[in-house]
Amino acid sequence: MKTLTLALLALPWATSVAFAQHKDVSKPEVNYQAGGSSLQGVEMHQDINPKAPPMTKAEFEKARKIYFERCAGCHGVLRKGATGKPLTPDITLEKGIPYLETFIKYGSPAGMPNWGTSGELTDEEVNLMARYIQQTPPQPPEFGLAEMKATWKVIVPPEKRPTKKMNNYNLDNLFSVTLRDVGRVALIDGDTKKIINIVPTGYAVHISRLSASGRYLYVIGRDAKINMIDLWMEKPDNVAEIRIGLEARSVETSKFKGYEDKYAIAGSYWPPQYVIMDADTLEPLKIVSTRGMTVDTQEYHPEPRVASIVASHFRPEFVVNIKETGKTHLVDYSDIDNLKITEIPLARFLHDGGWDASKRYFLVAANKSNKIAVIDAKEGKRVALIDVGNIPHPGRGANFVDPKYGPVWATGHLGDETIAVIGTDPEKHPQYAWKVVRTLKGQGGGNLFIKTHPKSKHLYVDTPLNPDPKVSQSVAVFDLTNLDAPPKILPIAEWAGLDDDGAKRVVQPEFNKDGDEVWFSVWSAKDKKSAIVVVDDKTLQPKAVIQDPALITPTGHFNVYNTQHDIY
Amino acid sequence: MKTLTLALLALPWATSVAFAQHKDVSKPEVNYQAGGSSLQGVEMHQDINPKAPPMTKAEFEKARKIYFERCAGCHGVLRKGATGKPLTPDITLEKGIPYLETFIKYGSPAGMPNWGTSGELTDEEVNLMARYIQQTPPQPPEFGLAEMKATWKVIVPPEKRPTKKMNNYNLDNLFSVTLRDVGRVALIDGDTKKIINIVPTGYAVHISRLSASGRYLYVIGRDAKINMIDLWMEKPDNVAEIRIGLEARSVETSKFKGYEDKYAIAGSYWPPQYVIMDADTLEPLKIVSTRGMTVDTQEYHPEPRVASIVASHFRPEFVVNIKETGKTHLVDYSDIDNLKITEIPLARFLHDGGWDASKRYFLVAANKSNKIAVIDAKEGKRVALIDVGNIPHPGRGANFVDPKYGPVWATGHLGDETIAVIGTDPEKHPQYAWKVVRTLKGQGGGNLFIKTHPKSKHLYVDTPLNPDPKVSQSVAVFDLTNLDAPPKILPIAEWAGLDDDGAKRVVQPEFNKDGDEVWFSVWSAKDKKSAIVVVDDKTLQPKAVIQDPALITPTGHFNVYNTQHDIY
Repeated sequence: MKTLTLALLALPWATSVAFAQHKDVSKPEVNYQAGGSSLQGVEMHQDINPKAPPMTKAEFEKARKIYFERCAGCHGVLRKGATGKPLTPDITLEKGIPYLETFIKYGSPAGMPNWGTSGELTDEEVNLMARYIQQTPPQPPEFGLAEMKATWKVIVPPEKRPTKKMNNYNLDNLFSVTLRDVGRVALIDGDTKKIINIVPTGYAVHISRLSASGRYLYVIGRDAKINMIDLWMEKPDNVAEIRIGLEARSVETSKFKGYEDKYAIAGSYWPPQYVIMDADTLEPLKIVSTRGMTVDTQEYHPEPRVASIVASHFRPEFVVNIKETGKTHLVDYSDIDNLKITEIPLARFLHDGGWDASKRYFLVAANKSNKIAVIDAKEGKRVALIDVGNIPHPGRGANFVDPKYGPVWATGHLGDETIAVIGTDPEKHPQYAWKVVRTLKGQGGGNLFIKTHPKSKHLYVDTPLNPDPKVSQSVAVFDLTNLDAPPKILPIAEWAGLDDDGAKRVVQPEFNKDGDEVWFSVWSAKDKKSAIVVVDDKTLQPKAVIQDPALITPTGHFNVYNTQHDIY
Repeated sequence: MKTLTLALLALPWATSVAFAQHKDVSKPEVNYQAGGSSLQGVEMHQDINPKAPPMTKAEFEKARKIYFERCAGCHGVLRKGATGKPLTPDITLEKGIPYLETFIKYGSPAGMPNWGTSGELTDEEVNLMARYIQQTPPQPPEFGLAEMKATWKVIVPPEKRPTKKMNNYNLDNLFSVTLRDVGRVALIDGDTKKIINIVPTGYAVHISRLSASGRYLYVIGRDAKINMIDLWMEKPDNVAEIRIGLEARSVETSKFKGYEDKYAIAGSYWPPQYVIMDADTLEPLKIVSTRGMTVDTQEYHPEPRVASIVASHFRPEFVVNIKETGKTHLVDYSDIDNLKITEIPLARFLHDGGWDASKRYFLVAANKSNKIAVIDAKEGKRVALIDVGNIPHPGRGANFVDPKYGPVWATGHLGDETIAVIGTDPEKHPQYAWKVVRTLKGQGGGNLFIKTHPKSKHLYVDTPLNPDPKVSQSVAVFDLTNLDAPPKILPIAEWAGLDDDGAKRVVQPEFNKDGDEVWFSVWSAKDKKSAIVVVDDKTLQPKAVIQDPALITPTGHFNVYNTQHDIY
């Protein structure tokens, strides 16, 4: 089991919902729309290393594209290593072609996929990659204020936007659904389950976030394109857009009293930096580079990618989590001219996380460190580093009151079947605070999201990245009043009733506003049918199936009210 | 005049007291002890650019050394440009060899020295450099915590140091004198004018700073070596040392109440970063990279060098001035684990500066921007950007009360003969605050330091970098009670009475503790006689000449009390 689940982790989609369409990938003409990294489409300098095996320009270009598609997610653009090992020439030149070929073709128990024997890469391509990773890593271009401004469009200026809500939708219960492979989001009315609009966006939107007022919806694609959608319009649609880099994952808005709907922030994987924008127009205002020293050895890292970003409710601050250096920036936006940043040392490979129920403490996964780190957003410091299972991936995690341990927050794992339940109440349950008080056992590794709701007695655990289709197409549900009982298994994909042979994955439980139904994406290939299945939280029975020709590759889906208020 | 003074600016020593011994420089076997940058001694990868003219490994190495010696100071290690223009291959490849050779050989009115016609480089070397700057700039290695710790030595541990002052020196009036080319400082008794000790240090010590208590003296060489000298020892000597990078300029200590003698900080040119250390042992604790976005265009800069650092008296903060990005970091050292940094946007090419008399406002030169920037250290924000003359170089500047304009601070310039006098009293003289209220006219360009003292009525202006020996060997003195009168000229080098043909430069007026005498270095070549001349501030007549065979290439000299208390 361990080998199997670990092997998953090096897949391009292992640390993100979005994943590659593998069939297209090995074609040299692939562009970022076909999946993976938008960086593969960027022109870069070929640095000939005289010690490395020769490559033609065409070979180098093909290998570079495959690298960004297959390898960069885990090994990093500059190959310094993250979830995967470092692959810089000082290391790879010593290994030599036969060793590297074997590793690429057959994989390793430590997590390297078997790219050759799985049929993903031909022997010729395996040889190409073995030669490529001995070259100096080409560095993608920078993306500063001028480049951002060149992509910035205010489609509807603020003064031309509605002054009041112009539609009759129950916006609190609207869902923003990523249509991954077509670069769109579907806005779905949570009450009627009808599609309100399909809005063009960046590729493989990674997250949807709301402005503090709930009026504006911000989405960011893996290609670092942000779209800003005005929900007050008769038909909610884009009012502004910008690209803030070449590859990105996170966007957020200012939430502190007095700063509602004032600033947006987005973080990029490349270049490694984040940018604060005017929340009304997406005008880029201030860019901050994350390049710097790692948290442990204090050595320089050239590619510290920005993972998740959340907005503090206790201070006018953004909480920016930086993967490779393992540090969190508390970015004080009360004076963005004289920007004040508190750098909290946590642990390497920060990924995503969420608030505890009080919203004072932020819990974030240091995924490849197998830790959950806890920040006190009120005091601006670290309070704990907690050992958990193999590669925690909480999404936002799940808050509930444990019958025995009081308020807790839980995370699942990519690398094993456990769910770690962590005490979060240092005042009334100090003996349990920041300790793993329970370990639940789910269906298997490959979990991306777990979810509950203050009004629910259930904890939902997906496993879309599990190699067993039975596991990846179903969801485990724990009874929060009886956590010692094994979970019920809901056959979500089956309930979708899709009548084709698409390889489906069930991803992301998400509650509606009232907390009485749970939405899941049944995500299939681009040319196959997908669906959204809505489950009744009381009965655990299917309540509705949303199926539409426009609903292509749905993945993440975000309820407006719960997202706006950080309810999870 | 303009062409002449501008041409000075591209010399390696134009932005620093320390300068190269030009005679040695073109020899390939030169090492950093011969002057210039310690980076020339570091092994680096040769990146062959297929579009650039061919070079042998030996040629590349020779050119690389000349570049670090002659060019890096102005153009930057990575050739992104600073005081000099950018010289990256995208620019230089287009120019071609004949154009580049012409520029290197003959110089330009915009500031490029005539390296060929001045006899500094042969035609062959000019050709070599024209080819070299078309190659990809080799990047020096990083220098993280492990590298620092490997160089760290506690020579006398804190518990073995004296518990009280073990000598009878009047430490307040001790002077720490840089003996540039021999990598030492001379500790001179300011009362008796006798040398107390000659202490081995890094090469070309750039600055001496005191701990808040005055007990410890910290010096930093251009090679980024810090020495910590305990003045309480019977014979003050080194108690700890460390290298914090490959090239550096600045060291400082924590001064805020409650943090006296607790932390030291040093900033490096390469790598571009700063490090906070335990002030008792120099143990490196926290490294902060300065790589990031420029203040104006917000584009990424790979080499933002740390220029000056001062300690705030109003907050537990270091004021770290970053050259290429043009930003100042206010580094809060009250919790160095959760480090808080406020980034103040100023203007590119920050260099050195000093406090106003109240020590609330810090005035810093943005040298190639021809501006003085003002920071309010109490409020933590910028208050003004003031246009001044051509390449301001204040050192710490000079504070006095102008008969007409009230409290003012003054700076001289490298690029012209003016002294800009700036109002610094926004409370009682708001109409003059942060404006150039007077422009005095000195002897010429090439000024490095100006100085006065609260008890003095004189303002001393050196001009060591002026090409005219008469000017570089004398000092202008203004009467602060009659600023409309022309300055008196003191023939300091003549007063030294050195009976050899050394090319002397008179550098850095520095007051004694009582503020009634002024010390100057009469700085000659390594194999010639140098001296320190002490002038009576009342009579403006020579009072003493310190001359000793050990006093080789004296440059900067720092009075303990005035340095400790930021009196200037």
